[in-house]
Amino acid sequence: MTPPAELLGFLKNEDDFLIATHLNPDGDGLGSALALSMALQAMGKKTALLCRDQIPKICRFLPDNEKFNTFETLLSQGRPRYDFKNLILVDCNDVDRITNDKTLASKLSFEKSVVIDHHETEKDFGDLKWISHDSPATAVMVYHIVKGLGITITKDIAVNLYAGIAVDTGNFRHDNTSADALRIAADLVEAGAKPAAIYRELFESWSSGRFNLFTRALGALQTNDGIAVTVITGKMFEETSSSADDTENFVEFPRIVKDIKVSLLLREVDEKSCKVSLRSKGDINVAKIAAEFGGGGHKNAAGCTIKANVEIAKAKLLSKIKDIL
Amino acid sequence: MTPPAELLGFLKNEDDFLIATHLNPDGDGLGSALALSMALQAMGKKTALLCRDQIPKICRFLPDNEKFNTFETLLSQGRPRYDFKNLILVDCNDVDRITNDKTLASKLSFEKSVVIDHHETEKDFGDLKWISHDSPATAVMVYHIVKGLGITITKDIAVNLYAGIAVDTGNFRHDNTSADALRIAADLVEAGAKPAAIYRELFESWSSGRFNLFTRALGALQTNDGIAVTVITGKMFEETSSSADDTENFVEFPRIVKDIKVSLLLREVDEKSCKVSLRSKGDINVAKIAAEFGGGGHKNAAGCTIKANVEIAKAKLLSKIKDIL
Repeated sequence: MTPPAELLGFLKNEDDFLIATHLNPDGDGLGSALALSMALQAMGKKTALLCRDQIPKICRFLPDNEKFNTFETLLSQGRPRYDFKNLILVDCNDVDRITNDKTLASKLSFEKSVVIDHHETEKDFGDLKWISHDSPATAVMVYHIVKGLGITITKDIAVNLYAGIAVDTGNFRHDNTSADALRIAADLVEAGAKPAAIYRELFESWSSGRFNLFTRALGALQTNDGIAVTVITGKMFEETSSSADDTENFVEFPRIVKDIKVSLLLREVDEKSCKVSLRSKGDINVAKIAAEFGGGGHKNAAGCTIKANVEIAKAKLLSKIKDIL
Repeated sequence: MTPPAELLGFLKNEDDFLIATHLNPDGDGLGSALALSMALQAMGKKTALLCRDQIPKICRFLPDNEKFNTFETLLSQGRPRYDFKNLILVDCNDVDRITNDKTLASKLSFEKSVVIDHHETEKDFGDLKWISHDSPATAVMVYHIVKGLGITITKDIAVNLYAGIAVDTGNFRHDNTSADALRIAADLVEAGAKPAAIYRELFESWSSGRFNLFTRALGALQTNDGIAVTVITGKMFEETSSSADDTENFVEFPRIVKDIKVSLLLREVDEKSCKVSLRSKGDINVAKIAAEFGGGGHKNAAGCTIKANVEIAKAKLLSKIKDIL
């Protein structure tokens, strides 16, 4: 994988970069932005970092994560507190992915915009774009940029990039785990990243509340005909002092059973509404099921909101799924 | 990492190898033995494979795993059915690790013996030894042997070696995950190993019984002062149609909680006896606790048997552990 020469030339010749990543940030967006900022600073450039939302707890071990600005810390008296000439979007490809507030977005004036991303594109934003759908993580792309710029990979850059790759490949277990990702991970370990320590931060830092909720959810899980259904009610959140965030990835767990082909998680929003996550193995297309309820996603990972109480929603979903199994 | 020239010379010059791995075999022992056998066969050598025990279900995707002999299929009328001149122990370093029956062991006559292993040695067995404690997996060592012999890594060799590395590094999450292991994994992916498919076989092939037992065990789990205690009774096995084997690695799970420092699993053997697994994080030495009950292990992973019912055993353990926290 080779970054476009035009992109490398731009980064070498320009200065004053605002590097922004997406709403509800994750290890790949944050780690990639931080690593790119460090590399540009090593070249003597001025950079600032922007993310609308708080850094998730599990990402607060990323070197320099505290340097991220929110819009509040970036803007002062309505104008950017820092001068910047160029906007770089990392792990996303449109300004509406860094803020959904058009007034705020309009305050980010810039001469040129750059996009570095591996997600599907819907809009045509950016003067200079490097979008590689085949890349397992944006961190893989940023690694190649840093190498292309001739910058030494420091320990801090290595930890940020390794975390990005670990998050987006599920620690090298998803289908996107490529030889390139593994070889880069090896280089990053040589530069000082510690795989086990990073794994613990990203994947083994559950709160007691999350653990108790997981235990309750698993206790209430039902399996039938290769379909696992987990229902999480408002009462369960209350009783375990946990919140919606704490359910992240719960829907993945039943996949551990060989015979489970589909896993559903229904999270009660209120008596008339629930959020649904759907996962499947192989050729079972749950995106189609989600689409029938106005949602979407990928073949094996999708989501939707159903305007009904959880029991009715569950019955509706199961009847649709049984049709396609 | 470079294999000893004497070992490579021996493998090049000799023929007729019996390649054996340890009791209660795992992906590293089996995958390493299979890969070595394939490489030697590619050089035109005769090989046979030996493992006392059945291939575990989760390893039955390893290419050629069905070629393993047990002692029963290897010996006919008390003599080896296959001629072999040289014995190679893989992922173990003494004959008592391939059989605990001295009569059987005595029937394995051989001219020379070779040991390829990364475990601690207790005995001084083997005419030619390559024992590398720093190696994350025996598969890493066998990879270097195959390369040293100048043999092309076929897809089947790649899958066997990748599986060995994945098992012994916990899919790149344990402290032994080295740059070398990751770089080799990258090479193996290029040679045809599929990380996600191998992960699913090794780590996501639970039976429903195991899953139900896990759910029950988690429901009964108690946490206090950073100590998680799981008790598995005979009744729980009965009710979930599961067995002792199905508890493997359960003791690891509570480590996912940031505040949990020690995880204990007590498995009821009968009313007067239980098996205990102990895990800890950081500097907490559970091997010392296990030793007080006549068991042993490593600082962060140990085990013992306590001659008492589970409730009494639990109380005794907790009182010892609270002393060292």
